[in-house]
Amino acid sequence: MIFDVEVKITLKDGMLNPEASTIERSLALLGYSVNNTKTSDTIKFSMDEEDREKVRSEVEDMCERLLCNPVIHNYKITVIPQETSCGCSK
Amino acid sequence: MIFDVEVKITLKDGMLNPEASTIERSLALLGYSVNNTKTSDTIKFSMDEEDREKVRSEVEDMCERLLCNPVIHNYKITVIPQETSCGCSK
Repeated sequence: MIFDVEVKITLKDGMLNPEASTIERSLALLGYSVNNTKTSDTIKFSMDEEDREKVRSEVEDMCERLLCNPVIHNYKITVIPQETSCGCSK
Repeated sequence: MIFDVEVKITLKDGMLNPEASTIERSLALLGYSVNNTKTSDTIKFSMDEEDREKVRSEVEDMCERLLCNPVIHNYKITVIPQETSCGCSK
């Protein structure tokens, strides 16, 4: 069974985000006033596995080993069976 | 009135995505088999403006001028009034 997987990676609270501060400063230079700028990365892929729990535990491993730095990042995993893809994240 | 803004930036169809191919190859080296890897960036910030339409048109300007490269990127803008933030993107 094929599953669509989405991993959303954000910085943990309190971590400095130089990318966000650069964006905010550059927008200010162009005359736009914005606040509380945050950035996040999303990685999407599909996997062929038996069941949703197996996919989730494999993706957690991937996050810990490669996709994220667990010291500074939080991650949120969404797994959707491809046949019934409806945009919801049950 | 304060609005929460989310800009989701993806590569246009047909553009090469070296970040995604590197992730896919590295996961394969670790023994995980994934397909159709895609990456996207999300920028969130808040803005103080009169109405939603003004926010949207300013953010479109920001995207064209700074946040995206319109030649290779698609972007999707979501604007939510902060007082009624409910996670929906009307």
